[in-house]
Amino acid sequence: MVFFENVNKIDFEGHHSTNPLAFKFYNPEEKVSGKTMEEILRYSVAYWHTFTMDGTDPFGSGNMIRAWNKFSGMDLAKTRVEAAFEFFEKINAPFFCFHDVDVAPEGATLQETYRNLDEIVGMIKEYMNTSKTKLLWNTANMFSHPRFVHGAATSVNADVFAYSSAKVKKGLEIAKDLGADNYVFWGGREGYETLLNTDMKLELDNLGRFFHMAVDYAKEIGFTGQFLIEPKPKEPTKHQYDFDVATGLAFLQKYDLQNHFKFNIEANHATLAGHTFEHELRTARINGMLGSVDANQGDPLLGWDTDEFPTDLYSTTLAMYEILQNGGLGRGGLNFDAKVRRGSFEPEDLFYGHIAGMDSFAIGLKVAQKLIEDKVLESFIEERYSSYSEGIGKDIVEGNTDFHKLEEYALQLGNIHNSSGRAERLKATFNQYLISVLSE
Amino acid sequence: MVFFENVNKIDFEGHHSTNPLAFKFYNPEEKVSGKTMEEILRYSVAYWHTFTMDGTDPFGSGNMIRAWNKFSGMDLAKTRVEAAFEFFEKINAPFFCFHDVDVAPEGATLQETYRNLDEIVGMIKEYMNTSKTKLLWNTANMFSHPRFVHGAATSVNADVFAYSSAKVKKGLEIAKDLGADNYVFWGGREGYETLLNTDMKLELDNLGRFFHMAVDYAKEIGFTGQFLIEPKPKEPTKHQYDFDVATGLAFLQKYDLQNHFKFNIEANHATLAGHTFEHELRTARINGMLGSVDANQGDPLLGWDTDEFPTDLYSTTLAMYEILQNGGLGRGGLNFDAKVRRGSFEPEDLFYGHIAGMDSFAIGLKVAQKLIEDKVLESFIEERYSSYSEGIGKDIVEGNTDFHKLEEYALQLGNIHNSSGRAERLKATFNQYLISVLSE
Amino acid sequence: MVFFENVNKIDFEGHHSTNPLAFKFYNPEEKVSGKTMEEILRYSVAYWHTFTMDGTDPFGSGNMIRAWNKFSGMDLAKTRVEAAFEFFEKINAPFFCFHDVDVAPEGATLQETYRNLDEIVGMIKEYMNTSKTKLLWNTANMFSHPRFVHGAATSVNADVFAYSSAKVKKGLEIAKDLGADNYVFWGGREGYETLLNTDMKLELDNLGRFFHMAVDYAKEIGFTGQFLIEPKPKEPTKHQYDFDVATGLAFLQKYDLQNHFKFNIEANHATLAGHTFEHELRTARINGMLGSVDANQGDPLLGWDTDEFPTDLYSTTLAMYEILQNGGLGRGGLNFDAKVRRGSFEPEDLFYGHIAGMDSFAIGLKVAQKLIEDKVLESFIEERYSSYSEGIGKDIVEGNTDFHKLEEYALQLGNIHNSSGRAERLKATFNQYLISVLSE
Amino acid sequence: MVFFENVNKIDFEGHHSTNPLAFKFYNPEEKVSGKTMEEILRYSVAYWHTFTMDGTDPFGSGNMIRAWNKFSGMDLAKTRVEAAFEFFEKINAPFFCFHDVDVAPEGATLQETYRNLDEIVGMIKEYMNTSKTKLLWNTANMFSHPRFVHGAATSVNADVFAYSSAKVKKGLEIAKDLGADNYVFWGGREGYETLLNTDMKLELDNLGRFFHMAVDYAKEIGFTGQFLIEPKPKEPTKHQYDFDVATGLAFLQKYDLQNHFKFNIEANHATLAGHTFEHELRTARINGMLGSVDANQGDPLLGWDTDEFPTDLYSTTLAMYEILQNGGLGRGGLNFDAKVRRGSFEPEDLFYGHIAGMDSFAIGLKVAQKLIEDKVLESFIEERYSSYSEGIGKDIVEGNTDFHKLEEYALQLGNIHNSSGRAERLKATFNQYLISVLSE
Repeated sequence: MVFFENVNKIDFEGHHSTNPLAFKFYNPEEKVSGKTMEEILRYSVAYWHTFTMDGTDPFGSGNMIRAWNKFSGMDLAKTRVEAAFEFFEKINAPFFCFHDVDVAPEGATLQETYRNLDEIVGMIKEYMNTSKTKLLWNTANMFSHPRFVHGAATSVNADVFAYSSAKVKKGLEIAKDLGADNYVFWGGREGYETLLNTDMKLELDNLGRFFHMAVDYAKEIGFTGQFLIEPKPKEPTKHQYDFDVATGLAFLQKYDLQNHFKFNIEANHATLAGHTFEHELRTARINGMLGSVDANQGDPLLGWDTDEFPTDLYSTTLAMYEILQNGGLGRGGLNFDAKVRRGSFEPEDLFYGHIAGMDSFAIGLKVAQKLIEDKVLESFIEERYSSYSEGIGKDIVEGNTDFHKLEEYALQLGNIHNSSGRAERLKATFNQYLISVLSE
Repeated sequence: MVFFENVNKIDFEGHHSTNPLAFKFYNPEEKVSGKTMEEILRYSVAYWHTFTMDGTDPFGSGNMIRAWNKFSGMDLAKTRVEAAFEFFEKINAPFFCFHDVDVAPEGATLQETYRNLDEIVGMIKEYMNTSKTKLLWNTANMFSHPRFVHGAATSVNADVFAYSSAKVKKGLEIAKDLGADNYVFWGGREGYETLLNTDMKLELDNLGRFFHMAVDYAKEIGFTGQFLIEPKPKEPTKHQYDFDVATGLAFLQKYDLQNHFKFNIEANHATLAGHTFEHELRTARINGMLGSVDANQGDPLLGWDTDEFPTDLYSTTLAMYEILQNGGLGRGGLNFDAKVRRGSFEPEDLFYGHIAGMDSFAIGLKVAQKLIEDKVLESFIEERYSSYSEGIGKDIVEGNTDFHKLEEYALQLGNIHNSSGRAERLKATFNQYLISVLSE
Repeated sequence: MVFFENVNKIDFEGHHSTNPLAFKFYNPEEKVSGKTMEEILRYSVAYWHTFTMDGTDPFGSGNMIRAWNKFSGMDLAKTRVEAAFEFFEKINAPFFCFHDVDVAPEGATLQETYRNLDEIVGMIKEYMNTSKTKLLWNTANMFSHPRFVHGAATSVNADVFAYSSAKVKKGLEIAKDLGADNYVFWGGREGYETLLNTDMKLELDNLGRFFHMAVDYAKEIGFTGQFLIEPKPKEPTKHQYDFDVATGLAFLQKYDLQNHFKFNIEANHATLAGHTFEHELRTARINGMLGSVDANQGDPLLGWDTDEFPTDLYSTTLAMYEILQNGGLGRGGLNFDAKVRRGSFEPEDLFYGHIAGMDSFAIGLKVAQKLIEDKVLESFIEERYSSYSEGIGKDIVEGNTDFHKLEEYALQLGNIHNSSGRAERLKATFNQYLISVLSE
Repeated sequence: MVFFENVNKIDFEGHHSTNPLAFKFYNPEEKVSGKTMEEILRYSVAYWHTFTMDGTDPFGSGNMIRAWNKFSGMDLAKTRVEAAFEFFEKINAPFFCFHDVDVAPEGATLQETYRNLDEIVGMIKEYMNTSKTKLLWNTANMFSHPRFVHGAATSVNADVFAYSSAKVKKGLEIAKDLGADNYVFWGGREGYETLLNTDMKLELDNLGRFFHMAVDYAKEIGFTGQFLIEPKPKEPTKHQYDFDVATGLAFLQKYDLQNHFKFNIEANHATLAGHTFEHELRTARINGMLGSVDANQGDPLLGWDTDEFPTDLYSTTLAMYEILQNGGLGRGGLNFDAKVRRGSFEPEDLFYGHIAGMDSFAIGLKVAQKLIEDKVLESFIEERYSSYSEGIGKDIVEGNTDFHKLEEYALQLGNIHNSSGRAERLKATFNQYLISVLSE
């Protein structure tokens, strides 16, 4: 069965063609500073948004036209796997990601759920044998089913905690089986609706215990992928415990987990938390915790997770700047945790969305690389902080001073001379690079 | 000289009088659960908003009618001290707070600034000898002067770092001299305007170094007050490093400072960070880090720090609930970091504002105390989490389980039974307490 | 069949009982300034949130425990009617509201949809014969079905415009048949996702044409209920055309519709638009356009329509203040367009939610009435604007002046004297009323 | 005296030079579709941000390094005029804008204020005789002085209304004298702090009266410039009456002023109101009310008016798209109502800021022009709405139908066919134009 009839495999030779289904900027084999674009960008397709999401929103029912809509149950699950690998091949995806329930339906019992998963995971594994597409990460959906109404590892109900443990145990086994590079924890409903009925301390302590058991089990079975926490500040709960990177850092340090986890940073989650995407990346980076990226974007005027395909070139460039400064994403990747708009309900739109996103990060990569090569920002910053390379500044940085010496120094200072931060000039320069780099 | 002519000392005997300058609910000597209201609430007047602020906003010049407006320089500073202690007495304030520049003008040199400070601090000390009003905390203003344009301890300029060290050194000496219960660090301009020109790692490392030197110096001089960090997410900078309590926790843990600091939590800063006031208090409380409170409120529809006098009884009640659950504020207090609206420019408005705030927290105290006495929330919560007191739940909490055992347990579970969180009933009950407690 | 087994009819004699399922403050027969609470408040139950909504949110499937869950199709529809009238009786609701698809399932064709509607509407009519509960308003759901993906009356597709016309035509016939007091237009998907693909002028012109045809048809069939537009700024679309009351006013004036419509104002929609609830009510009131109210509340820290049951007594009091100043709501009412939280999934929670809301507006009514009786705000305002009652102010208001005379007057003015706006004192007074009125 | 020593007149021949003080994209004489860039873009320098603003923010005192800082009073005012015309010449500005108090200090009396204004306006007029720079618009500052604490034309105080009338009368005379193309009304403090003390109806009625008198006076003196209202939603007041374009439209229609006014739309005000810049432009455009533009940008994560120089090329392109579709701005222009960041305190930063903004809109112009030339969006939209060009759609648009005919039509429809809105593809195409146009 062919699921995407009007779409041929993307022809990268013709990636500058005018065919709307061709890339204009992303060329997987093009080298940027010694590595191919494919190696640096490590694009991943999100199974849920691309093969499971049906266009439902809080005000309307599913409207997406998909060839697999006619199936249900395990037949649907199998058809989706077929469709997925057709899509992966046509879009030339190096990676994909999934939640357990994206690929296999829940059974009437946990045993049946396991059997469903085993069957589909087996099928996926077979497909992967002949496909280039690898598993960037998998995860367990612990928020959709009614049982998770009050959370999973932070549920008020110990039975739910136990059930969640079983889900993650299975997830880790699947991760190992499919050779996942990472395993992700997004907090789903780990948060609260109102403090009036919430024992926040117990819930967080339990979350710490849960993560330690997951770490232990991964070690036990020899799963060596990276554990990732994905922060989000709100939605579905009023307050999600993994609010942002800093909150995650506080938690991981408190529960002595910081050596076992990195962060999976989503652009739209950053903006919902009141941060720029690049801020969250920077915060993770300077703490050695930048693991992977959920590449999407939100609408700064809307207050919910819109999960749009990333097209803002400022955002993609600044993100790639942080990623390049991080020495790349290591085992992480750029996962398009993005969905086509409800109004974009035709199968072709799935391609347009991914092409829009892939091209946007490819542009971002090239602009960021050029900015770094030309030391546009680095030179300015080096000069700006130069007072810490000598004299009193060097003493400060090296810990060779105290309030007595610093006061003595301050008392003999005349007028202090500061220099302009040149925000406007830097932004204008940034624009010049953005507009010019691709035409070189 | 009398500065507040139309206002007599508040008569607490007549605190139910209809005189608008009388309290209706705050009665300092009234006991609530064994302590007086004054002992529990520890109200503090903010010197800057009450005696220095002149009504200026980004669109208009100063318009406040104040008897001391005719003075300038050190004369102004001295007159303000007089006015302050008249105000403290008339409003019956147990505490006050100040920044260095609130009380004494900067001199042409740091030496002169020190001399100005010494003279005014001496005068304050003398006044304190015959006044009941004590110093809750002082701090150094490291954001108003142009030298702090790029921050203080996180400045790009080592000279500014040194100058800031001198300011805090002096501030700690003043704190010790005046017997301050706490010393506060609000980050002022410790943040960034744009990442394009910012070495975030160096800036944060320097901030860690700065705090360690402050801790060392306090120890050296024997200042035993509590150190407090006051989080704020944005304004004046685009991103302030001490974004919220969780961010502060991450920072303090990373730089091994968590045993030396607690938090001073401001309501309006919480809401600017996307949190409720009570969320920030809870987060600090369950981490043993709830130090003190800047009691004000913001407008949830406005995006800047409006610093309004607190009048929302939901907020004051939920805040007092956290504070009572914390066993009180210890050396901290409720500092009215609040300013009268620009339209409230008459001297009487300063009294109305403080009375509004004091009455609101007094109501909050009584409602919260009654909620706790009646175990309205505690009973519900105890029942709600009861599955962690026995069986598998107890094993989880006590660390006596692992993913194997939990999976085994989950596999034999039938349908999991959850119970309603009763958010609506709890809110209705909360309203009943709010409306009824004072009439009892 | 009994749907709400554990709940007896609310006993208003015992409305001060401690039974959680009893009202504490709402007493339908209690008179407030000459009218009963029931007559003033005109409470309405929203069919969709109470009988159709299943707890689904963007991250989870339905979880509400409802006795009618076992049915489907027309059986489900009929069972819901039975359950609804049981609920109406037990909660003693004077009104209810519904969308066409809430009560009857869509058929395979429009003809079948009509037949389904006719059957259920007939059943409802029969129930209404023996029930006190009347229809406050009905409306057509023109947003859930995939055909409305690009809007209804503003659809890019003329077929959808035609289909929508048929839906509203039928809706008006039902309104007349059931004696609805109003007919509501909420814009559903009347808005845009991106301006890149939108002809905004054509869409708005079409919306104007649509409303004129609706007005004409109502006249033709003799439906004399009030037409209401319900503003909402965003969600589901990125931008909804009926952004807020002011936007609605601009539209209605431009298309010469202002005499045929009033507004149905929803609290949560107001806050999403950056306004307070009372601001929207005031704006409608002073333009003679306050028609009806969707009584709910949002979370000021969340960016989506949370549709919570109203419990904020500040909001309910300020709303009732506007409504009383409007001389009541006329044919409008207070419709609880509110849903229990996902965590409140038990049938009893539907009662708790409504009781919370009804009590909250009952309190608001009594506090507002007392504020008005005592002329607390009116006296202050009268004095504050008194300069417009005489001299130059009177000339201004009466149109007897011009820039020449005003300049002449201004040139001879000395210092202009303004008085404090007393925001803090008014807020403190407001609190005193809130806390005290019910205990009198 | 030379005020900007290190800056020579911009050399447009070398506008591709690497000199940071040269434009890269703006070339005033370059033709775009028949007109020069200068004629289309009509750039204007804002006197207040460039010559008066000193870097003060709510947390810090003035820090801008300006050669005129050493002067005060009328000397300062005169020096600023000199500096301004040096700046205009060096940046090659075709227009400028000012408030009365930007150019001349208020006197002790209104008479003295008039004299100050007359002297400075005379000086400006003389400079204008030999300068290319013309006056785009002037306005009266009716918000900074304490007398305007409760508004100007909506003040609670009739004396303030009169004083404001005198200010605008004088402003119109100056506008006529200097040949201003427009006269602007930005609402300053026309709004409210709290509804508790506000007679909103009287205030708005007075505002309507005020505008009518202004219209009459302009007619009387023969000032034929365009009147412009500048919407802003909040700040400094909690709620500004001219919230957004739609609110302005409602007001103008109600008070029968719509033929006398257009809108001056500011990007940052749009975003504070929850709209995109292009939304506000589109709303004004399709109502024939697009007058002029305050070209700046806000930070979508900050809740106050940051007034940044515009550098976001998405925003400038979408703005120029609306402006070109409007047939240009007529007598309006692009006024840089933008200020350098506090950290950009050196005189050169004023040039960098303007160059950043001018280049950004020049790019926007070229990309928008190319999008229009290629009918990228128009073709798609034409096809998308094609059902309104024939059959039932044509009947709808031409008013030849009613609910009967439409229902009849709907009843015979089978499944309705909608097409994808292609949001993702359009955004990707937009990016391709943005990246490619300048390299052609």
